Amino acid sequence: MITRKPSDSLTIMTEIVLPNDTNTFNNLMGGRLMYWMDIAAAIAAQKHCNAPVVTASVDNISFENPIKLGNAVRIEAKCTRAFNTSMEVHLKVWGEDYTQQYKYKSNEAYYTFVALDPTGKPRQVPQLIPETDEDQKLFDGALRRRQLRLILGGKLKPADATELKALFVKD
Amino acid sequence: MITRKPSDSLTIMTEIVLPNDTNTFNNLMGGRLMYWMDIAAAIAAQKHCNAPVVTASVDNISFENPIKLGNAVRIEAKCTRAFNTSMEVHLKVWGEDYTQQYKYKSNEAYYTFVALDPTGKPRQVPQLIPETDEDQKLFDGALRRRQLRLILGGKLKPADATELKALFVKD
Amino acid sequence: MITRKPSDSLTIMTEIVLPNDTNTFNNLMGGRLMYWMDIAAAIAAQKHCNAPVVTASVDNISFENPIKLGNAVRIEAKCTRAFNTSMEVHLKVWGEDYTQQYKYKSNEAYYTFVALDPTGKPRQVPQLIPETDEDQKLFDGALRRRQLRLILGGKLKPADATELKALFVKD
Amino acid sequence: MITRKPSDSLTIMTEIVLPNDTNTFNNLMGGRLMYWMDIAAAIAAQKHCNAPVVTASVDNISFENPIKLGNAVRIEAKCTRAFNTSMEVHLKVWGEDYTQQYKYKSNEAYYTFVALDPTGKPRQVPQLIPETDEDQKLFDGALRRRQLRLILGGKLKPADATELKALFVKD
Amino acid sequence: MITRKPSDSLTIMTEIVLPNDTNTFNNLMGGRLMYWMDIAAAIAAQKHCNAPVVTASVDNISFENPIKLGNAVRIEAKCTRAFNTSMEVHLKVWGEDYTQQYKYKSNEAYYTFVALDPTGKPRQVPQLIPETDEDQKLFDGALRRRQLRLILGGKLKPADATELKALFVKD
Amino acid sequence: MITRKPSDSLTIMTEIVLPNDTNTFNNLMGGRLMYWMDIAAAIAAQKHCNAPVVTASVDNISFENPIKLGNAVRIEAKCTRAFNTSMEVHLKVWGEDYTQQYKYKSNEAYYTFVALDPTGKPRQVPQLIPETDEDQKLFDGALRRRQLRLILGGKLKPADATELKALFVKD
Repeated sequence: MITRKPSDSLTIMTEIVLPNDTNTFNNLMGGRLMYWMDIAAAIAAQKHCNAPVVTASVDNISFENPIKLGNAVRIEAKCTRAFNTSMEVHLKVWGEDYTQQYKYKSNEAYYTFVALDPTGKPRQVPQLIPETDEDQKLFDGALRRRQLRLILGGKLKPADATELKALFVKD
Repeated sequence: MITRKPSDSLTIMTEIVLPNDTNTFNNLMGGRLMYWMDIAAAIAAQKHCNAPVVTASVDNISFENPIKLGNAVRIEAKCTRAFNTSMEVHLKVWGEDYTQQYKYKSNEAYYTFVALDPTGKPRQVPQLIPETDEDQKLFDGALRRRQLRLILGGKLKPADATELKALFVKD
Repeated sequence: MITRKPSDSLTIMTEIVLPNDTNTFNNLMGGRLMYWMDIAAAIAAQKHCNAPVVTASVDNISFENPIKLGNAVRIEAKCTRAFNTSMEVHLKVWGEDYTQQYKYKSNEAYYTFVALDPTGKPRQVPQLIPETDEDQKLFDGALRRRQLRLILGGKLKPADATELKALFVKD
Repeated sequence: MITRKPSDSLTIMTEIVLPNDTNTFNNLMGGRLMYWMDIAAAIAAQKHCNAPVVTASVDNISFENPIKLGNAVRIEAKCTRAFNTSMEVHLKVWGEDYTQQYKYKSNEAYYTFVALDPTGKPRQVPQLIPETDEDQKLFDGALRRRQLRLILGGKLKPADATELKALFVKD
Repeated sequence: MITRKPSDSLTIMTEIVLPNDTNTFNNLMGGRLMYWMDIAAAIAAQKHCNAPVVTASVDNISFENPIKLGNAVRIEAKCTRAFNTSMEVHLKVWGEDYTQQYKYKSNEAYYTFVALDPTGKPRQVPQLIPETDEDQKLFDGALRRRQLRLILGGKLKPADATELKALFVKD
Repeated sequence: MITRKPSDSLTIMTEIVLPNDTNTFNNLMGGRLMYWMDIAAAIAAQKHCNAPVVTASVDNISFENPIKLGNAVRIEAKCTRAFNTSMEVHLKVWGEDYTQQYKYKSNEAYYTFVALDPTGKPRQVPQLIPETDEDQKLFDGALRRRQLRLILGGKLKPADATELKALFVKD
């Protein structure tokens, strides 16, 4: 049975913020960034499963620092865990200002993709085996995030989300 | 002091899914949809606060039904609650196939925006007064969703999220 | 036999004017607006006839007020009358400046679409039954506009345009 | 006093119909074509008046033959007559299929532009002196088309449109 | 056997530099210009061979004068020589500032295209017969440029590039 | 005095080939690829010099393998040598087909950029110190490529291009 490491799916995307990507404050619009993140994450998911994929869900994204017109956007995407027919992808996004020589974190996010067979039906994906400590942490957290997704999607009762419940009742 | 109703900010956007918006299965890409939703939600937020806004966060989005090439996308956005300098916007998204004469829900989402003054600093926004029962429900839930955002953003301990905690420990 | 009301085809489109949509005065270019109007009107026509449509003609458009960069564009499109295989769609376009809190009319226009069957041949469309007084006025005027289109397209002699001729010779 | 010939403003634009420009029948959308025509016509107007211009109005356009995906679009634009601060531009549009070796007329149109001074106010434009017989014909017709624009814009009563009225009552 | 003249393939493209085409100095980006040149040159090649074409290579391009935001770009493309299944296209590019009433050369370039049959295999193209002195010069130089392409592509040893070698050893 | 290593400027860009990027054979258009390469290379140059840059020239590009619709494009860009106010950037481009699990080289290219000070005048850039053997080879070749650029740009006589001449006369 095929397995893959997180590093197998590492995808790096670099873009420049052009005028049409910005709001009236000359900062990158959130929606435009989510579009690029979706493409970077979809590539990471395809690298993992070698099949076409579709976006199943996007977890809560919080935009920390605005990225300025003319700055570069650096997106790193990597699979964190494979479920039966779906994969969670972790993304980190930075703004890079080469003239001022500083980099600033914009946000972090999790996108989930489903792999499809040629008829458009979900198909099994290879399991992911974490390598580094950070990989392991992301792998472990994936279960908790999945429960949250199921609760928010109305497919799981909060009381049955054992992993997640522990967060709220531990003290 | 100025207040606004949810209906004051109602924004309706209609788009057609063109080839460049689609994946290899001829379905609308999630990222492209999130881009449109960001613009529709930003307009709703601006209608509420009469100031420029920036996207602060996007809650978990789950894509239920793919929207097909050539179909229309209908997005409805409406403010659900105003906080001090931020507003939560609720979006509902449908695909519409006029030839087959059916409409299908694609997803529901919550985007949060911060209002800015001309120097780019956050500024106060009018309070929102819910009108209908549905408005009231969305208004009430906004507090719980806000706690979840703060927890996920690392700005609140789960144990302190009173509203949210109740969900997990009530039984 | 199927009939439809004007309200069945009502289509609302909202867009933001981005830098690439503007001329050197930071106002929305006429061509970009006509592109959005074409899509909004095509959706209205499809709602009426439940078939794919193609743009047959666009009546005289006069641009009254420029729409500014960062403002929203609101387009409302609605069928006014159905002929054998074609439909006339009426559009109203406003600019909306939320910061300044004012709305201004940009223009009004009529687009005509032909419905196509799967082989690309024109096919019959449902008749339209006006409801309100305004609907009736638009319905009645459609005949006169159609004569003008035929004259301008070289398919009708001015002298045979009974409806239209009345305008010029009545006094 | 400066004058210009129609040939001074001749502008030729060639584009390829790409997937995103097409409807579900793989034909160029009318709105996309009107966008290109607006740019070609605006360039012709600027060549005539050497000032920035804005689209004032677009006359009735009738789309005769659909232009196919992958075919080229050839647009020719030329000033036909200058008024005080505005210019009428005539456009001819063809589809060109190089593989099948045939060219087909798509449509003909008239766009009107107003010249602006640096403060955004209308400014005088050079007069146009027709050269060829075709130039003269377009120059003469411009008056009639202008009356029609004024009537359709509600700025002239049909009975006062002497030039135009003649068309309807001459027989 | 079919032959064609350079003038048969003459293609003129006019574009306006919009905000998204520019760098932070408000000048047209080189990559955007090469994109437009590729389309203009591909059309010229298709006019010559009446078949679909793909870009095989692009010769050294040197950007002389930046083209400003809001200025027009004028591209002229023309076949200079046909080889067995490929054609060389010569392009000249100008910036045009209508308000300041001056035109400035941006660059000159050579693109090479291969003609394809319906199965995607290279197919023979008509020979090109130069007409004017300039045509003849471009036709003659095509051989030298082809040798340079082959050397740079690692398909020809410099010592065997007779035409090109002459340039370096003639004195 | 500041110096930089080639690895300091390494830039990785990943894109998906969407319908509008393709020709009628569903392969990526050369012009669209050169556009992406220009942006990737400009970022690499900015990383090297920490200043805005403009494209000065692009060396001969030969397109080896077409990149298919839906495949990913991977671009790697890295500075190879700095001159006084300009930098040469080397690019390698691959197509990546994740479903078929193979990668294929598309092309290799050299773009040259000039660094600008805030007034738009060329400004000095840091020197580049090669690290690896491959870096050294690219560094050494940069001189020869520069002579070729100068000759092709008409700024150097072939007979004076000592480095380059050696290639042609060595046997």
